[in-house]
Amino acid sequence: MGLLDVFRASRKKGSAAIAKERLQILVAHDRAFRNRPSYLPKLQQEILEVIRKYVEVDLDAVSVNYEQDDDQELLELNIVLPDAAARS
Amino acid sequence: MGLLDVFRASRKKGSAAIAKERLQILVAHDRAFRNRPSYLPKLQQEILEVIRKYVEVDLDAVSVNYEQDDDQELLELNIVLPDAAARS
Repeated sequence: MGLLDVFRASRKKGSAAIAKERLQILVAHDRAFRNRPSYLPKLQQEILEVIRKYVEVDLDAVSVNYEQDDDQELLELNIVLPDAAARS
Repeated sequence: MGLLDVFRASRKKGSAAIAKERLQILVAHDRAFRNRPSYLPKLQQEILEVIRKYVEVDLDAVSVNYEQDDDQELLELNIVLPDAAARS
C-alpha cells in the first residue's frame, strides 16, 4: 500500500459524517546534513500565508504538530476552514 | 496509531540506507462545497516557490501525485534535493 493510500485510509475514518472544509498539510524533511538549521518553522508560516490567499483561515483553527529526530523532521498542519456558505 | 506515526512508519522503510536530502509534502483538502473550483494546482506552484526560497530545487526532481474524488483532493509532492555539500 502506497503512502497516499495509507494517508487516505487514515483520514476517511473520522471525516465521512462531518461535511467540513478542512486542509491538512504534512511536510517531511529527510535531513542528510544535520548541522544545518531547520527552515521548517519559517516554511510553515509561509505556507500558511500562501493558503490565506485562497481561503479565509482563522489562526485559532490551525493546529500544528512538529516532530524532530536525528535524521528527519515532520510538520503537520491541520486547518478547519470556516463555513464557506457564510461567505459570498 | 496517529496519522503522524503512520506517515513516519511508511517513510522509514526506504530511507534508512540512503542519506538524501528529501522533502515530501502532502496536502489533503476535504471539500464540503464541491461546486467550487480547486485551488490545489495553484497552491502547489506557490508552495514550490516558497520552498525554493530555502533550498535549491531542480524541477526535474519534483514528482507530483494528484488524486481527487467526490469529497476530497490529495496532492503529494516529492522533492529530491540536490547534494547540499556541493553548495557554498
